[in-house]
Parts: sequence; C-alpha cells; structure tokens
Amino acid sequence: MSTVSEVPNADWDLWHTMRAMNEQLSRELDRQLQRDAGISQADYGILVTLFEAPERRMRTGELGDLLAWEKSRVSHQVARMEARGLVKRVVCESDGRGTWVTLAAEGKRALLGAMRENATAIRDLFFDELDEGEKQTMLRATSRVLAKLNAACEAEAANASAGAA
Amino acid sequence: MSTVSEVPNADWDLWHTMRAMNEQLSRELDRQLQRDAGISQADYGILVTLFEAPERRMRTGELGDLLAWEKSRVSHQVARMEARGLVKRVVCESDGRGTWVTLAAEGKRALLGAMRENATAIRDLFFDELDEGEKQTMLRATSRVLAKLNAACEAEAANASAGAA
Repeated sequence: MSTVSEVPNADWDLWHTMRAMNEQLSRELDRQLQRDAGISQADYGILVTLFEAPERRMRTGELGDLLAWEKSRVSHQVARMEARGLVKRVVCESDGRGTWVTLAAEGKRALLGAMRENATAIRDLFFDELDEGEKQTMLRATSRVLAKLNAACEAEAANASAGAA
Repeated sequence: MSTVSEVPNADWDLWHTMRAMNEQLSRELDRQLQRDAGISQADYGILVTLFEAPERRMRTGELGDLLAWEKSRVSHQVARMEARGLVKRVVCESDGRGTWVTLAAEGKRALLGAMRENATAIRDLFFDELDEGEKQTMLRATSRVLAKLNAACEAEAANASAGAA
C-alpha cells in the first residue's frame, strides 16, 4: 500500500497489524469455542447478548444494532441457530414491529459452558500482553473512532430517509 | 460479560469497543468499495496482495498466510473472483505444489480505481481521529499481541504434525 499517498507508511503498519490481530483473534476464539462448546463466535455473540437482555429476549433489529451487524446477517444467523435449538423466534402480531428472539434451553446451556473458557482465552491472548497505560490509550482512541463511525452511520440514515421523503 | 470473573469490567469495555470498531470499519469500507469499484473488502484484500507480489502472482497458501485466512476461505473467494474475471488460476503441474493465482486485467482495473478512495476512507475514518502517541502505542501493543497469536498458531501446527507422526 506504500504506493498510495496521503497515508504515511508507519500508519499502514498500524492498520495492517490491527486488522491482522483482529482477524486472528476471531479465528482463535472461534476455534476454542467450537472445541469447548460446539458453537461459533457468531453464535456466542447472539447468545451472550440475549442472556444479558431483560427477560433474555430481544428484537432482531436491536440485536443487529448492539452487535453492529446488518439486519440480513442477524436474520440468517438466528434462523440457523433456531434450527439447532439454541434460540427461539416469537412473532408478536399485536404490535406489528417484527420478531422477538429468545434464548432456548440448549442455548443457555452452551453459553454457560463457553463463557468462562472464552473469557480466559481473551485474557490470555489479548489482555495479558497489554499494560494499563496501553489499555487506557487504546480504549480512549477506539472509543473516539467508534463514536465517529456511529455518527457517520446516523448521518447516512438521515440522508437516506430525507431522500425517500 | 460482567458476570465473568478474571477480566475487570474496564477491560471488557476495551474489548467490546475494539471489536465493534473493527466490525464497523469493515462494513463502512465494504460499502464504499462496493459503491466506488463494485468489489468487496475480501476482493480488495486479494487484489492488493497480488498487485504487490513479484510478477503479480502468488500461491493460494501464501495468500492465506498473508491475509491470515483459512485455506478453504481463500479457495472459495478466489473461485468466485475467477468467475467474475478479477483473477486467474494457473495449476503448475510440474512442481506439484498447487495452484498459482494471478491478477487478471479486470482485477487490476478495479483495484486501481479503488485504491485511492479506500486509502482516503481509512485516513478519514481512522487515522484522523488518532494522535501520534496513540498510533505508536497501538502499533506497539497490537504488534505484541499479533506476535503471540502467530507463535500460538505455530506451536499448534507443530503439535498437530507431531501427533500425526
């Protein structure tokens, strides 16, 4: 990427390192979850989000917002998990605002089995390598980038609805 | 995740923020690449890697190593890209070490169109939010985590081959 101007080479090093680290963390956590609990990281993200929700249920749209996933990705993932008995879908016809997703018994069992191992793996692979100053700097920096990304998303959505009006 | 011990709550904030930031950066870069050049971020990763390789070609296995992708993911991605005329696959029967992937004319065209816009987007969304000290801290920290992940991968591969022997 050194042929592309505007971004210094040292910055590209950070970009590629950060992206490769995230990719490899996902792969390694996925591998350990599959081995320990027979679920993927995507399954795990849905299960832990439902587990922490009031009454352990949530609308598809809220799930997508919290996980920062596209709506279609949430729908496909939830359908696959329902077929495996991990979650249940309940359509609330009275309010017309779509589908609730709830944690099924098998999903709760798989989640509880996986939670401690997953936390231990994240600690060993990631947090143990960082000192307190680095963690604070990274939290501050990534929070700012995320806030900007969220603002950009909202502006886009507002533009889209203004265009449709 | 606050119910899981061993990892302090402030650490979980960093974990979730960092993961959400990476997820949203991928979505936004993907959206812009699709809009500007009609290719996905996965397409882009393959194209830019081939573009920078000697003679603009590479073995499937090397591509996977550089992108930190599973071999099956590289194979499926390359097959889809070949069908769209972005890359070509060449089997070298003489050396028996598998398939070369080369950049096709249409792939080079799409890549050059996308490179500048992609770099500008990464600068605007990510680098412009960070100061020099933050960048240096993040590069140092993420490089250490990545080195540890790579070492863990190699140890696993060594174990697997020792088990098979």
